[in-house]
Amino acid sequence: MIPPRRDILVDGRPGDVLPADDRGLLYGDGVFRTLRVDAGQPRWWDDQLAKLSRDCASLGLIAPQPVVWRADLRQLAPPPADGILKLLVTRGSGARGYQPPDPAHTRRLMVFEALEFSPNPPAGLRLRICALRLGWQPRLAGVKHLNRLENVLARAEWDTPEIDEGLLLDQAGNVISGVMSNLFIWRGNRLLTPRLDRCGVAGVARARLMQRARDAGIEVQETELDLPAVYEADEVMLTNSVRGLRRVARLEAKHWPNSTISRQLTEYLDA
Amino acid sequence: MIPPRRDILVDGRPGDVLPADDRGLLYGDGVFRTLRVDAGQPRWWDDQLAKLSRDCASLGLIAPQPVVWRADLRQLAPPPADGILKLLVTRGSGARGYQPPDPAHTRRLMVFEALEFSPNPPAGLRLRICALRLGWQPRLAGVKHLNRLENVLARAEWDTPEIDEGLLLDQAGNVISGVMSNLFIWRGNRLLTPRLDRCGVAGVARARLMQRARDAGIEVQETELDLPAVYEADEVMLTNSVRGLRRVARLEAKHWPNSTISRQLTEYLDA
Repeated sequence: MIPPRRDILVDGRPGDVLPADDRGLLYGDGVFRTLRVDAGQPRWWDDQLAKLSRDCASLGLIAPQPVVWRADLRQLAPPPADGILKLLVTRGSGARGYQPPDPAHTRRLMVFEALEFSPNPPAGLRLRICALRLGWQPRLAGVKHLNRLENVLARAEWDTPEIDEGLLLDQAGNVISGVMSNLFIWRGNRLLTPRLDRCGVAGVARARLMQRARDAGIEVQETELDLPAVYEADEVMLTNSVRGLRRVARLEAKHWPNSTISRQLTEYLDA
Repeated sequence: MIPPRRDILVDGRPGDVLPADDRGLLYGDGVFRTLRVDAGQPRWWDDQLAKLSRDCASLGLIAPQPVVWRADLRQLAPPPADGILKLLVTRGSGARGYQPPDPAHTRRLMVFEALEFSPNPPAGLRLRICALRLGWQPRLAGVKHLNRLENVLARAEWDTPEIDEGLLLDQAGNVISGVMSNLFIWRGNRLLTPRLDRCGVAGVARARLMQRARDAGIEVQETELDLPAVYEADEVMLTNSVRGLRRVARLEAKHWPNSTISRQLTEYLDA
């Protein structure tokens, strides 16, 4: 089996290494995005760059300009490339210890992995509930930063192919998200998704679906959701920037055999 | 000004770069230690390696053997080197996404920075209270892992040389530690230090001081401490593996002009 093609730009130059004193390595001092490229077109590109900029700002990082990312993209994944693109920004090197250097010279990475996407299978996802409970850190909530040990430990809880994704709760028992996706439930003709002001990552697909559903006249709420609320949902769905929206077929012993709104919402999201 | 000499070994080989797909960078998926070397002798070396092993185990990482670290040390900081040594272990490269590769090939870094240490000045440290509040994550509490954004954001709160260290509280208002040190208070002939079962890093100097103080017949307690308890302390002290024990002279507007027990405890710790 041939390993997938991988290409990396570090500050716009081909290379597959990073200085060992990069603060992204030493402290997780940075942010990232993972998204899908179809025929050289990154999915929801403007939204992705805007979110990356906001996440940079939340750490006091100066985000690379969109024009810079666009040049990287032309170099790394020109049309008709299909695959997964990762953008990563760190606070670069410098200053011994936690104190950020001033000025900081941010470092950017773009990683492209060529991949042929098959359509999402019609069968829904099979979920388990993770034992790991997310901690609360309002200062970092919503941000896709490089401190992702909670996700790593949660994802390490299973390695059976029968499980597609894990459901993450916080320490108060609120349902927050999947390990690598955001959560929506459909109940009584309303679209509900967990509040992410204490933990979790507020993904681009999530924001986009909320907006598109509202535009279509659907009532959308960010709210606290507990496990019973999820079990009693008419339909449960997960979103991310690579696979878009997918319905959940099973959570532990609970089954949802039929789709209600997910096909409609997929159309809104992908429009 | 000549920058300090820096030397780096990556898996035992001289080099100053790391693969861009290292999980330490991508997710903070690793652990580290920072300690002091005097004339080629790492301070509290066995304790440091034991703690690094325990921290590796808490993430499911296989720690490099002590013999391997010793060989790195002979290469990087042979006697009579003085300086600061950093040991870092990551889950290496491999597996796209959060799921740890199985088996994982851990990667180790040793970084040495030559430095002449001046004795700790007799004047105590000047502290501020950080606005950032530590989140609770019992699964990672005590471990010196690479997810250190909380410390970075807390350390970024001040850049005046008049402040030596920041005091970190958790979200319930408990005092936990300094940004780069552990906290002890002396009160009514007892030595108290915060419990670290929900957040914070349980440092080697802290463990060692607790043990030595107990050996000397002092009552030592790990407990919940709030700010009033710190303000009312007879003496406040911070520990870490580079500077050992130092007394606190000031916390915001509160002054502790005189030492009570800190000189004695320094002797126990350094013995």
